Amino acid sequence: MRFSTMLLPTLKETPADADVISQKLMVRAGMIRKVAAGIYDLLPLGVRVIRNVEKIIREEMNRSGAQEILMPTVLPAELWSESGRWEEYGAELLRLKDRHGRDFCLGPTHEEAVTDIVRRDVKSYKGLPLNLYQIQGKFRDEIRPRFGLMRGREFIMKDAYSFHATDESAEEEYVKMRDTYSRIFERCGLTFRAVEADAGNIGGNFSHEFMVMADTGEDAIAVCDTCKYAANLERAEIRPYEAKESGEDASTNEVDTVTTPGVKCIEEVSVFLDVSKETLIKTLIYNTDAGPVAALVRGDAELNELKLKRVLGAEFVELADDKTVEEITGAPVGFAGPVGLKIRIVADHAIRGMVDSVAGANEANTHLLNVNQGRDFEAEYGDLRNGAEGDGCPRCAGTLSVCRGIEVGHIFKLGTKYSVSMGANFLDENGKAQPMIMGCYGIGVGRVAAAAIEQNHDEAGIVWPAPLSPFDVEILPIKIADLEVRKAAFELYTELTEAGLDCLIDDRKERAGVKFKDADLIGIPLRVTLGDRNLKEGNVEFKDRGTGEVRLVAVADAAEEVLKSIRGAGQ
Amino acid sequence: MRFSTMLLPTLKETPADADVISQKLMVRAGMIRKVAAGIYDLLPLGVRVIRNVEKIIREEMNRSGAQEILMPTVLPAELWSESGRWEEYGAELLRLKDRHGRDFCLGPTHEEAVTDIVRRDVKSYKGLPLNLYQIQGKFRDEIRPRFGLMRGREFIMKDAYSFHATDESAEEEYVKMRDTYSRIFERCGLTFRAVEADAGNIGGNFSHEFMVMADTGEDAIAVCDTCKYAANLERAEIRPYEAKESGEDASTNEVDTVTTPGVKCIEEVSVFLDVSKETLIKTLIYNTDAGPVAALVRGDAELNELKLKRVLGAEFVELADDKTVEEITGAPVGFAGPVGLKIRIVADHAIRGMVDSVAGANEANTHLLNVNQGRDFEAEYGDLRNGAEGDGCPRCAGTLSVCRGIEVGHIFKLGTKYSVSMGANFLDENGKAQPMIMGCYGIGVGRVAAAAIEQNHDEAGIVWPAPLSPFDVEILPIKIADLEVRKAAFELYTELTEAGLDCLIDDRKERAGVKFKDADLIGIPLRVTLGDRNLKEGNVEFKDRGTGEVRLVAVADAAEEVLKSIRGAGQ
Repeated sequence: MRFSTMLLPTLKETPADADVISQKLMVRAGMIRKVAAGIYDLLPLGVRVIRNVEKIIREEMNRSGAQEILMPTVLPAELWSESGRWEEYGAELLRLKDRHGRDFCLGPTHEEAVTDIVRRDVKSYKGLPLNLYQIQGKFRDEIRPRFGLMRGREFIMKDAYSFHATDESAEEEYVKMRDTYSRIFERCGLTFRAVEADAGNIGGNFSHEFMVMADTGEDAIAVCDTCKYAANLERAEIRPYEAKESGEDASTNEVDTVTTPGVKCIEEVSVFLDVSKETLIKTLIYNTDAGPVAALVRGDAELNELKLKRVLGAEFVELADDKTVEEITGAPVGFAGPVGLKIRIVADHAIRGMVDSVAGANEANTHLLNVNQGRDFEAEYGDLRNGAEGDGCPRCAGTLSVCRGIEVGHIFKLGTKYSVSMGANFLDENGKAQPMIMGCYGIGVGRVAAAAIEQNHDEAGIVWPAPLSPFDVEILPIKIADLEVRKAAFELYTELTEAGLDCLIDDRKERAGVKFKDADLIGIPLRVTLGDRNLKEGNVEFKDRGTGEVRLVAVADAAEEVLKSIRGAGQ
Repeated sequence: MRFSTMLLPTLKETPADADVISQKLMVRAGMIRKVAAGIYDLLPLGVRVIRNVEKIIREEMNRSGAQEILMPTVLPAELWSESGRWEEYGAELLRLKDRHGRDFCLGPTHEEAVTDIVRRDVKSYKGLPLNLYQIQGKFRDEIRPRFGLMRGREFIMKDAYSFHATDESAEEEYVKMRDTYSRIFERCGLTFRAVEADAGNIGGNFSHEFMVMADTGEDAIAVCDTCKYAANLERAEIRPYEAKESGEDASTNEVDTVTTPGVKCIEEVSVFLDVSKETLIKTLIYNTDAGPVAALVRGDAELNELKLKRVLGAEFVELADDKTVEEITGAPVGFAGPVGLKIRIVADHAIRGMVDSVAGANEANTHLLNVNQGRDFEAEYGDLRNGAEGDGCPRCAGTLSVCRGIEVGHIFKLGTKYSVSMGANFLDENGKAQPMIMGCYGIGVGRVAAAAIEQNHDEAGIVWPAPLSPFDVEILPIKIADLEVRKAAFELYTELTEAGLDCLIDDRKERAGVKFKDADLIGIPLRVTLGDRNLKEGNVEFKDRGTGEVRLVAVADAAEEVLKSIRGAGQ
């Protein structure tokens, strides 16, 4: 492609309304343009990257035996009423009426539509398993669309849905998809982790998010330095401290009271008593569907309500209001403690290792010193706190570190939620009707491109992983007006194009500085620069966009060297 | 692909709500399923065909220098207000509101969106010409969607828009696109014609419809048997009869009146007077913006109002009501004739060749015999009637025949309609702002697939043109339970798949009859049948779906023979 004829409108200025790096660079590199909030045009450079992602996804999905279909964007309300989601789904579901006044929505996801296909055309276990996928524009009416393609309203998604006769089959497919997704993101040239996510009431490890690692990522992730364990920080399990032998470290100090007038929060208590937060017990009173509960974590930790729910087996947990706290503890908020409390007490594993702690006294303006579990109060123990850098891995002896990532894919065992509500049954080998067991598997196609940029850029612009790059190589003749330069550049361009490479040649009558800046911005991995001085000595310059490495190559060898560096030395 | 694991739900019964052959066969062959009126799922077999069409389109558009982009499906009302189409476009434009109450529509076409891109990012003649295309799902809320993918509400379209600094450039691109479209439909393996269509107020031959010829087509087309001329029948020009020398064939018979009580229409007059319709003059009174007009055509012809408009240079023409006819002719409807009429008379060229015609007498229950133009009335002559089988070609000495076709593409020089209303200007070489000149070029992707079936089918099912076929070859082992058969079939399948062919193997445990019926229905061009009897003699059977030709091939040569027949003898 010739730069001079391509719609490739690069910008010097960073757009004012862009929130994140990838959005800024995509706009500046002429990949996308905003049409309305969360709605974008993909310009030619953007389409090339998206097509690269789609091609990799399609090849790997097909290879794993999934079959491509295409469902409508505009879906009838009836299907969504059957699953109950017409009512349940919030305002993100864009509802509309056709000219006859019939209700439709723009598909944000296609569980109903695909279940409708399968219940209609698959009647027997012989037609199972089945994994159907599509690559399609979807619409979610986000209240605050932002971050460009990262959280748009209209976006391209690969969504796949599998149907099974048995749990084993569904779980086999789950593992197959986890491997398929790993191959997809590997082939995209991305550094990523498959991260354990909440599987809801399905049970087992059947929900994984695929995270592209990037410092700018929205999600904090705990990653083991030894094994493959990785989880969203707020869901990460933590290895409990080893339980201490009874009597070991046992304190002989008596509980003492201390007056702490108006000193309520952990921060204030720590300063007032001049003790570290690690010696404080934080006591939080919760209302739950299992009754009122006191939850204890060490003063330096954050309680994680998801974990509290799981430990209690509760459907909901909610911090108690001031009045309830006073009724339960007999003291104003800020002075709750475990000693003498009459309600159920659950404590984080870390509490078990504490000696001579400080806690609220359940009495206004008073704290207790030398509080010891077992002797002064009893509790149930569990994993209640947010993980942090340095925590122990729950799967091995390794240590967790915390890093950031961007969710680009999610795989999930759905179970029978949709097949039961929509009557997607099959006859088993005994002729008995059974609901199909389902799985679903999504990839945000535009998000993959955006995440690739978040992970691979520098101050000058994008640094594309080769598999996603809109072109294989950029040819940059410095003075296009110079006949020798032009001739050599177009000869190289023609030779490489005929060899099957996608080349961009910057044939614009622009200054070298402008061309170099644009090349860095657009970020094609390999740049071949042709200048009159180098050419006089029979050379062109190869530059690696990632490393910045520069080397001279004889012009006669240039095409072969480009092919070698792109296709590997073997070819 | 293995039939047993593919979602390929063929049906024995023809669906009750299918109107046309292609729709029936697509449903029966398991390519599509209806979700709502005019809204379909594409199942795996359907997706394969659509992807084949898209691939050919994409390759040829890219080859011609067009650049792929992707615009949103959901478009903001503001853009449509700028062009005036938010108000003008009828109920086919599906309008909707987002959660904030802002107006949007589902794009039925993208002139506004693409003009917005170009006006924003192209400022100078140096950025022109530009041809941008996309392949995308579109939505038109047709009042009566029908014919399956032929006239759906949601449908896949390739739409392209070009932008130019000069008329010459726009017209060059028009010709290039005409050639590109011809290459596309040729590569699809279709018999088609580029048919002249109405270019509105643009002038010149800058509107062509691409028609796939099929007896079941919606459109009647006049096609020359000698040159390339083809046009929609209602727009087809007709070579005028050669004008007769003055005095030649001149009649010496005097005009005579005949009483024709209650005999009004051509049919009745012809029977009543026992004369052929070719001797009658049909006189129609029109109200037009150029005043009242009498339009004459021969009794066997149909007046064409589009042509009448063109001959008159009128904006509107409308048949006069009974009262007006009586005022103008002095007689009730049914007895109008040219003799003695005081209003402007325009006549079809054929009238000039008539001698001793019969016409109304402008008097109740009376007709005139021996009416002759020139002597008894004067008229302006032009092309006023619908063409018919046997008419002369307007471009050469050939003869027109009438056949039927399905519109699959349309190319059109748009001019400055959108660039003027939306302010898409560029600076010319003198620094003067000018509106860009535009062209637009559409292909209905699903329609191409449907039209291919209308053109290529028999009683048993589809007969795919090879380039669109969902698979290159079907391998049909008759008794899959027979180890020898199964082994030979899968060996062939593996060898061909590894050679890069798309193979379908019918590995179902079904009776031979069921498999043969499904193979005919699905319509893959080449079928290789493996039966135990043939195999014992070392043979397999090749069958051409189109010709029905059958031949035995040695099993050892089967793979090579398949490759030869698909890729041509050269490979």
